[in-house]
Amino acid sequence: MIVDVSKKVLIVGLGLLGGSYARALKRFGFHISAITLDQSSIDYAIGEGIIDEGSIDLDERMIGEADLVIFALYPHVFVDWIERNQGLLKSGALITDVTGVKSSIVYRIQDVLREDVEFIAAHPMAGREVSGVENSTADMFVGANYIVTPTSKNSPDAIQTCMELGRLLGFSNVATLTPEAHDEMIGFLSQLTHCIAITLMTCNDMEDLEKFTGDSFRDLTRIAKINDQMWSELFVANKGPLLDQMDNFIDKFNELRSMLESEDIEGMRRMMRRSTERRVAFDRKK
Amino acid sequence: MIVDVSKKVLIVGLGLLGGSYARALKRFGFHISAITLDQSSIDYAIGEGIIDEGSIDLDERMIGEADLVIFALYPHVFVDWIERNQGLLKSGALITDVTGVKSSIVYRIQDVLREDVEFIAAHPMAGREVSGVENSTADMFVGANYIVTPTSKNSPDAIQTCMELGRLLGFSNVATLTPEAHDEMIGFLSQLTHCIAITLMTCNDMEDLEKFTGDSFRDLTRIAKINDQMWSELFVANKGPLLDQMDNFIDKFNELRSMLESEDIEGMRRMMRRSTERRVAFDRKK
Repeated sequence: MIVDVSKKVLIVGLGLLGGSYARALKRFGFHISAITLDQSSIDYAIGEGIIDEGSIDLDERMIGEADLVIFALYPHVFVDWIERNQGLLKSGALITDVTGVKSSIVYRIQDVLREDVEFIAAHPMAGREVSGVENSTADMFVGANYIVTPTSKNSPDAIQTCMELGRLLGFSNVATLTPEAHDEMIGFLSQLTHCIAITLMTCNDMEDLEKFTGDSFRDLTRIAKINDQMWSELFVANKGPLLDQMDNFIDKFNELRSMLESEDIEGMRRMMRRSTERRVAFDRKK
Repeated sequence: MIVDVSKKVLIVGLGLLGGSYARALKRFGFHISAITLDQSSIDYAIGEGIIDEGSIDLDERMIGEADLVIFALYPHVFVDWIERNQGLLKSGALITDVTGVKSSIVYRIQDVLREDVEFIAAHPMAGREVSGVENSTADMFVGANYIVTPTSKNSPDAIQTCMELGRLLGFSNVATLTPEAHDEMIGFLSQLTHCIAITLMTCNDMEDLEKFTGDSFRDLTRIAKINDQMWSELFVANKGPLLDQMDNFIDKFNELRSMLESEDIEGMRRMMRRSTERRVAFDRKK
């Protein structure tokens, strides 16, 4: 399947991400339907002209007509949906997702999925501090990464289609990674940073701190405002890789602590120079 | 002494901070002299009209005439200067500093200082990623905090004068703290955050990370570009309070790690809700 506008797209879960997918794809004229929990989300999206039809029920006709189904759900809800309702999918349909962790989801879905439906997993690395279709935007993915995580069960066609979807959605960088490499990367770049931010925000009860708080502290704790339901589920779904990243961090942090305790100025300066050098490289390739 | 424009101000160390002090004070018409290492800094500052005169030597006349002396030096250089050269200061002069740590400096200076000269310590909580008088600006302190850290040896007059200096410099928030409370606060808000940033930047060598790096990681590592000479000295000068803050952080981080390992979702969600709640409070009072 190649993404062309005669294909019917179904979005399951019309929140911030699902809504932004709808907006971005509607620009090309796709027929878009949506299944979601709240009638108000559907009414809003139809009013905005970003979906053609929607339902809060498992509408068999709507599901059976879709060529491309995008699941924008919590991980466990996604797995549950497939296990219960995959019989309703059209033969030959391609399904994809937005889940932020991969190994624990991709193989499980591919194991239980019907032979005549293909699941190609993807992670749109984008988000905002707000939620709901009302906050969705068509240009949410500009500047962001879209990672497709194929397995040996995926066809070259599905991989190409999914990458093309990422480009249509407006992502600036579309790439592929194995589910394992994705989870290691996300464990470090995203999950570990959130662990650090919530720890920093809760490890000191000193009063009046906010009076003296400057940019560094605000930078490091911006992501300490966190959706506890979603992130706790994503942490557990990526437990192994995240624990590894936490351990790496603790080891290095303890190394710095020991150097400070023994006043090993040269050792600290070496670490700071390495950190400066690495961070500069991150700037340059931005 | 009250700050009035008939007073002569001497700045020792004409770099980014010293230069910004000169610019900010020159707006009011003070007579400003400077002693610094490089003739080029003096030439530049005179050319810009932000100092009246300057010297790379210990100019006895210049030092002996100053009513207010601002030391913008590395901590150990400041202590060293006072020990060697305090005999040159005018009787009745007030001296202050910009040092980022306090307990390890303030008492040491006050212990060795002549009886007829008063040292009132202050920390201008401002900085930039660049250095040198050429990068100084008159509005560098807008939005920033100026913390005066008096001890029992300070006169009410000197405390008032120093706070007034902070306001003249353009700081948005001028406050007093004991040296100990200052060091605890700075150990947490500034030094611990830098320890975290340099650890995060050096604990993972995975390739191609920068390709997938998003806002969270960039936010948490912005301060990982660090002046290794200055920060290693400041870390050691605040060793006790910083080690305490590092230990608090490690304890809380390990608590989160244990909850993840045992899949204690409720515990993680509690911590995330607390972190969200605390971070919101930091926003509001900004």
